[in-house]
Amino acid sequence: MLKTLTLETPAGDALVDITQQVKDAVAESGVESGLCAIIVPHTTAGITLNSALDQATASDIVAELRRLVPTRVDFAHQYDTPADAAAHIKASLIGNSITLAVAGGELCIGWSQFVMFYEFDGPRSREAQVKIIAG
Amino acid sequence: MLKTLTLETPAGDALVDITQQVKDAVAESGVESGLCAIIVPHTTAGITLNSALDQATASDIVAELRRLVPTRVDFAHQYDTPADAAAHIKASLIGNSITLAVAGGELCIGWSQFVMFYEFDGPRSREAQVKIIAG
Amino acid sequence: MLKTLTLETPAGDALVDITQQVKDAVAESGVESGLCAIIVPHTTAGITLNSALDQATASDIVAELRRLVPTRVDFAHQYDTPADAAAHIKASLIGNSITLAVAGGELCIGWSQFVMFYEFDGPRSREAQVKIIAG
Repeated sequence: MLKTLTLETPAGDALVDITQQVKDAVAESGVESGLCAIIVPHTTAGITLNSALDQATASDIVAELRRLVPTRVDFAHQYDTPADAAAHIKASLIGNSITLAVAGGELCIGWSQFVMFYEFDGPRSREAQVKIIAG
Repeated sequence: MLKTLTLETPAGDALVDITQQVKDAVAESGVESGLCAIIVPHTTAGITLNSALDQATASDIVAELRRLVPTRVDFAHQYDTPADAAAHIKASLIGNSITLAVAGGELCIGWSQFVMFYEFDGPRSREAQVKIIAG
Repeated sequence: MLKTLTLETPAGDALVDITQQVKDAVAESGVESGLCAIIVPHTTAGITLNSALDQATASDIVAELRRLVPTRVDFAHQYDTPADAAAHIKASLIGNSITLAVAGGELCIGWSQFVMFYEFDGPRSREAQVKIIAG
């Protein structure tokens, strides 16, 4: 099953928790055992697993990525804003796909892991693909 | 189907667009619905999705990775060149595999996304694996 | 087949070679052709492919990641140690899953590639999931 999730992201860089939507897609698929790939079809957003138990972890990740890849005016890419140019770089650092296991009809992630859609240049209307196959 | 693509990379760090070869592999597989993993079997190269609509995005990514992981002479790894030592680090930051969905017999990527082979220590003769399974 | 590997990691940041355990899981699965996803269900650890032919490459990667994301006391995340807060960020930079091909009953990785469990906040008792499907 290929399910396309839709979401609205806040301004700037932000981690948006989509764990429940991904778990719902796994349940909807009826797959008992298999793989679940989560894919971001945008060039200024990424996908990662991390803690959402408190907001501080997401704040640290966002702040550190902004420090590592500062938004500035001297990028070669001048078509969009400097934030957009920085966002393309962050997207390649974080990555656009993750692959997880499905067992017992459920998504196998750690107890402190959440599936986080990482927007680098919001606010935007975004999609995330959830592809589940049996095996 | 497992298809091995071959490519020649330019000197230094470079993003090489292999989107068409990956799409051709998906078409050749005859798979209507499934997963497509793209894997780099080298330790000084990676794989990423990003824009290839203009060359400026790739230039920014390459320049920023060079700034983040400067090629220098004080790496512990001294067997090869300093560029090779830096390349190993960049490979782990960018990653060696991505997993995409196949639907309607086509690779599901965003309209501004391209599959980019990321060479960190060219020029080299390289391979990329494209593995497609139905499901 | 879903196989859960267990491992003990050393103090601090470290790359632990789990290639043989992953290869053993592929052999145990009996899958001739398919996909093998390797997944880390922890938020302060990641997974990467890199060289383990000498220890210097791992030393460079660990040192560079510590330089890029310095352990310090001003993180927003104050629940655990500063090393734990830095570890969450490194986990998202390196990533939690990789997907490889299986062909001829064997894991398809490059001759200089090894599957490395990347601990950012050891020592810990850890797990890595190996999910293999035929196709």
